[in-house]
Amino acid sequence: MDGNDQMTGAESLVRTLVKSGVSVSFSNPGTSEMHYVAALDRVEGMRCVLGLFEGVCSGAADGYYRMTDKPAATLLHLGPGLANSAANLHNAKKAGSGIVNIVGEHATHHIKYDTPLTADIEGIAKPFSHWVKTSPNPGTVGKDGAAAVQAARQGCGQIATLILPADCAWTPGGEVAEPLPVPSQSKPNADTVKAAAKALSSGEPAMLLLGGRALRARGLELAGKIAAKTGCKVQGSGGTARLSRGAGRVQITRLHFVVEQAQAMLKGMKQIVLVGAKEPAAFFAYPGKPSILTPEGCTLTKLCAVEDDCEAALEALAAELGATGLQPAGVAQPKRPDKPSGKFTLDGLGQALGAVLPEGAIVIDESVTTGRGFFPFSAGAPPHDWLNNMGGSIGFGAPVAVGAAVACPDRKVICMIGDGSAMYTIQALWTMARDNLDVCVIIFANRSYQILYSQLSDVGAPNPGPRAIDMLTLDRPTLKFAELAKGMGVEGAQAHDLEGLNKQLHYAMNSKGPYLIEVVM
Amino acid sequence: MDGNDQMTGAESLVRTLVKSGVSVSFSNPGTSEMHYVAALDRVEGMRCVLGLFEGVCSGAADGYYRMTDKPAATLLHLGPGLANSAANLHNAKKAGSGIVNIVGEHATHHIKYDTPLTADIEGIAKPFSHWVKTSPNPGTVGKDGAAAVQAARQGCGQIATLILPADCAWTPGGEVAEPLPVPSQSKPNADTVKAAAKALSSGEPAMLLLGGRALRARGLELAGKIAAKTGCKVQGSGGTARLSRGAGRVQITRLHFVVEQAQAMLKGMKQIVLVGAKEPAAFFAYPGKPSILTPEGCTLTKLCAVEDDCEAALEALAAELGATGLQPAGVAQPKRPDKPSGKFTLDGLGQALGAVLPEGAIVIDESVTTGRGFFPFSAGAPPHDWLNNMGGSIGFGAPVAVGAAVACPDRKVICMIGDGSAMYTIQALWTMARDNLDVCVIIFANRSYQILYSQLSDVGAPNPGPRAIDMLTLDRPTLKFAELAKGMGVEGAQAHDLEGLNKQLHYAMNSKGPYLIEVVM
Repeated sequence: MDGNDQMTGAESLVRTLVKSGVSVSFSNPGTSEMHYVAALDRVEGMRCVLGLFEGVCSGAADGYYRMTDKPAATLLHLGPGLANSAANLHNAKKAGSGIVNIVGEHATHHIKYDTPLTADIEGIAKPFSHWVKTSPNPGTVGKDGAAAVQAARQGCGQIATLILPADCAWTPGGEVAEPLPVPSQSKPNADTVKAAAKALSSGEPAMLLLGGRALRARGLELAGKIAAKTGCKVQGSGGTARLSRGAGRVQITRLHFVVEQAQAMLKGMKQIVLVGAKEPAAFFAYPGKPSILTPEGCTLTKLCAVEDDCEAALEALAAELGATGLQPAGVAQPKRPDKPSGKFTLDGLGQALGAVLPEGAIVIDESVTTGRGFFPFSAGAPPHDWLNNMGGSIGFGAPVAVGAAVACPDRKVICMIGDGSAMYTIQALWTMARDNLDVCVIIFANRSYQILYSQLSDVGAPNPGPRAIDMLTLDRPTLKFAELAKGMGVEGAQAHDLEGLNKQLHYAMNSKGPYLIEVVM
Repeated sequence: MDGNDQMTGAESLVRTLVKSGVSVSFSNPGTSEMHYVAALDRVEGMRCVLGLFEGVCSGAADGYYRMTDKPAATLLHLGPGLANSAANLHNAKKAGSGIVNIVGEHATHHIKYDTPLTADIEGIAKPFSHWVKTSPNPGTVGKDGAAAVQAARQGCGQIATLILPADCAWTPGGEVAEPLPVPSQSKPNADTVKAAAKALSSGEPAMLLLGGRALRARGLELAGKIAAKTGCKVQGSGGTARLSRGAGRVQITRLHFVVEQAQAMLKGMKQIVLVGAKEPAAFFAYPGKPSILTPEGCTLTKLCAVEDDCEAALEALAAELGATGLQPAGVAQPKRPDKPSGKFTLDGLGQALGAVLPEGAIVIDESVTTGRGFFPFSAGAPPHDWLNNMGGSIGFGAPVAVGAAVACPDRKVICMIGDGSAMYTIQALWTMARDNLDVCVIIFANRSYQILYSQLSDVGAPNPGPRAIDMLTLDRPTLKFAELAKGMGVEGAQAHDLEGLNKQLHYAMNSKGPYLIEVVM
């Protein structure tokens, strides 16, 4: 049934996506997407997951990609649907995740009447996409779909947005397209590898700064071997799209969000070799503080960019240095903290998590100010993955957890979110309930945009008055997350001290399906 | 204190906005907006209303403008914050609402480092804005703010987006700018008025098709006078940004969403005069159905566009026809339905509302399929306003209700939303609680995207299979809106039959502050 007069453009798209390896659509469809939806019952191999808000769909596709290295589709309703997905597309783009957005559009002949939903969809897509196309007719839809998947698989992963006019979807004449080859990631040339090796062997204080897929288990192992050989420090970037952690893995820290603390981590370095990482820069600019955090007199050597084959680059560097056969330095030993007790402290929260983190856990970290110090307490926990927000747009956590749980149904997903952040995309809870996703959502409820208190002073506006403070507080009224969860079909409860949290975590780690814990700080 | 070395760019902006008549900021600030927030305690006259999601802020600014004809500001955090606001900006743009978006940006020297939140903010703004500017230095910020307000006040109202780099906000040297004059709206020339008068006096079946501010009380009165003179039909467009209704006002219907029903309303017309309305077109295109709904052989005459002075145009037309002194035709008489009883029916819901609608009520209508037939039951209720979604992006209702309630604290706001629509911007409930806004939210819970069932068949994809149906249903799990409301500090309850609804409505209409009723259909 490849290409015939009976197949609609929409059906050719679903068939092409499946053939190209896309097997999940995170969807929030409307009228213009009905033919895609209708085709799902005629095509095997496409799971359709419904989100109540489009930011849930794009965030889920991000999480799915990070755990599978395979793009998922989103299905979005014209310009406004795409716009609602855009903040989490921004995060996905910065994380190097591949996503194929399918965005419905009015029938081509209808656009000129400027009816309510008419908008410049390509214009909306461009700032958030590497690749944008509007299908001109049903016969090209399959081909355009295959090209979108190819684009999404470029480099480490890209955002591809395919706009599908309704008449191209509903008209017969669709042709299923063959999958297109995916160009392999760039490998570093010998000179680059030699230069990096020379920098690390210079005898000066040196650092391997890792980002992207250099942070997966094999990349870390290679970095550990190189450190064993050269004595260099191994350091993670500020955010990590997916970091392999736990006992048996090379243990690293991330560059701190606070400028002075990040500078302290880099202090004294004379050589920094970048592997899938950019030159270290402050998250925000502040008056009188530097944007670039590299110490003065330090030489930067770029081994590879995030979109290159970071693992191959590290293999080549280890080989160049004769480190391949060494035991890696800095491997974490199995070790768990005792379960903590008493009132909530930030360390206590980190201990409570480290004490129970199950093997294979996927931690989605949008804990903002609360969780910055959690790393040491879970360094020796069983092997797990840790996913950070790479784009800084809050409302990342719960949607990404949806996608990670769809990607890895046998692994426990633990989603840590600040209360302020959680409210941007709280609708994700419903999808967790609907698809019975194995996610433990932990809300750190400090009843404020806590980060902004320090930021006020950092940007040179200390001593906020009552009106300013009013914009940073979330305690009037108090958000009740267990009620919100219940309203969306997710079981949940509050924890008021560390014993309570231990008990809730024990329950959550020993049951399947979504569960929400509100840590009332 | 106009222009000195001590005043930051941010403070000059807040002062300029206040001076130019902007007195409310619907805000979701972050680090880059902290100086604007800090300035609130040094400047009198700016109320700052916090939203937990940016779509609440933009929708609130839309509702505020519709009720005051004055732009409010939004305060948004870089590209992603703007993106989250964009769907409701789309709706506001289509409604002809004026809004001044203030969007924070990295410090100018920081942008080049492409840190997590860096994005093409102007590119994101353009599809949703009539006017976009990035302030280049603190000394221009005030002037740019005044220009943004001027742009927002053009025509019937426009979207103006001012991007404020953090260093332009925090650096001293700000200068408060004087308000800029607002060009008055275009008035029709004598020939246009004569042509419209001729069309209506032709003796052929004729219609005045009204949109924009022609739908306010005075515009309707003038249309009624013209109808009394010429016998023409007076008809509203498909959506109405703000329609004056109730006893003593000229009663009109809106063009139906369903193509065949809209065609029936236009059938037989030979002359249509457009007053702030566009040529009638279908909301969506459907296979084999027309996009344009004007009957064949019907002549269109455009008296004025939505951005022109529609009231002045109708005054001139009435004068030209000698209708100014007449009693308007089609004035609604005071009449209320009896309170209905029994199981829920669509008519019963309309009756329940019509029976209690208080004088001065502001009805925000995102009831989608449920509320299409409500108009007759409230035509004779005390005078009230009725606001529709003009851009078709759902998630419009609750945010617009926030803005309407801030604009008109002495009027009861009634916000009717389908359950599917309500979930896009459910965070608005929290702002209603926080600011104790007098809003009765009525959720019509049919547990589905009900509209899509008919749309499937209309676009030529009837008989959906189980996977397609799964994308249209919201009953697994059931959303519990009273729990969601409770979680955000809003009192609420379910109604299971019309008696229950009557009781809940009685309570809500006789108390102040937010209240949510879930109509379990």
